[in-house]
Amino acid sequence: MSKVVVVYSGGLDSTVVLYHLRAAGHELKALSVNYGQRHHARELAAADAICSLLGVERRTVDLTALVGFFGNNALTREGAAIPEGAYAAETIVVTAVPNRNMVLLSVGLAWVASLRFDAVAFGAHGGEHTNYPDCQPPFVDAMDRAAQVCDFRALRVLAPFAHGVKADIVRRGAELGVPFELTWSCYAGGTVHCGRCSTCIDRRSAFANAGVLDPTGYAG
Amino acid sequence: MSKVVVVYSGGLDSTVVLYHLRAAGHELKALSVNYGQRHHARELAAADAICSLLGVERRTVDLTALVGFFGNNALTREGAAIPEGAYAAETIVVTAVPNRNMVLLSVGLAWVASLRFDAVAFGAHGGEHTNYPDCQPPFVDAMDRAAQVCDFRALRVLAPFAHGVKADIVRRGAELGVPFELTWSCYAGGTVHCGRCSTCIDRRSAFANAGVLDPTGYAG
Repeated sequence: MSKVVVVYSGGLDSTVVLYHLRAAGHELKALSVNYGQRHHARELAAADAICSLLGVERRTVDLTALVGFFGNNALTREGAAIPEGAYAAETIVVTAVPNRNMVLLSVGLAWVASLRFDAVAFGAHGGEHTNYPDCQPPFVDAMDRAAQVCDFRALRVLAPFAHGVKADIVRRGAELGVPFELTWSCYAGGTVHCGRCSTCIDRRSAFANAGVLDPTGYAG
Repeated sequence: MSKVVVVYSGGLDSTVVLYHLRAAGHELKALSVNYGQRHHARELAAADAICSLLGVERRTVDLTALVGFFGNNALTREGAAIPEGAYAAETIVVTAVPNRNMVLLSVGLAWVASLRFDAVAFGAHGGEHTNYPDCQPPFVDAMDRAAQVCDFRALRVLAPFAHGVKADIVRRGAELGVPFELTWSCYAGGTVHCGRCSTCIDRRSAFANAGVLDPTGYAG
């Protein structure tokens, strides 16, 4: 058993990471980050509901000051359109927040170091249709090596699903009884999942591929 | 020639990095970070003066929201005493801001990616008396590997003095005509360098060891 800070958005992937590490007996804290993403309020409401359910302490850090350094991606740029349709090379580029995961992990590791915890965890999964570079195994491995030399003690970076696809995460979540209906994925950040943006389509097909009933209420 | 974002505090080390990369013909932008350090105002005034002199665009990002994640170090904790005397194991631990350099580099790399620049640079130097883990060559190498896989293009982390000591930086700065008198090191953040904190003592002895006249006005 070790002590782990989970980078936690309230989304499907990081919620399953939280349940997965809890089932393994680790002591957990959750770290949510407001980096100016438009679906922030819905994400944090989901994160709150699930952390309350589990009795996991959660902190939110406000990094909206970074928005100006993230360029023109559709998630943080005011007025940008969220692309619709399944993930494709172009969608990935447009919705990629530059170096987001290194920023999140570095803040998580700062908290890990000051708590004298052991590791930071996040919900990266490779997946053929979601090839964000900072979700792939080479990135996870490189960050894990950096974590081992960034502090007076060797810290670690955990990404239990880095070698899987989103359907694997849904399958594991179903085993663990994750309340999927409380999680939030949609980039558009409306009152229900839009069902049309790339992450809604990805979420829906992950349930279908996993053979797990999808409790999400999609618009339309 | 490449395009580089320099993590730039206005201190001696990062100022020499700025002059060194400029002399090599790179196109530069400077990134300063307010992470709640008490000597922030003095640092930024120095950074401003030098960037104006060089005509380098500089941006400051406000990461004071991170203070709560940095624990009890003496640089960011309100009311904490800045230890006096030369660097020693205990001073290093007390003045280490957990994982500071990974946070700074990750933000720098986010900006590098969105600008379509090539690399981020910082003023790390190993040095036997200043063994902050996130200034040592193994950390620099690990971050450079992570930078190469964090984005759609391979980015780099440069730390031209990682294998040197502070006296090497002073020597190189003297060759380049760096206006040392404009740089700021002191942790105490008063109106002149206190001359008693570990970084003042380190600064003073770096000039002495380099055989370069120290133009710094120290208190007392």
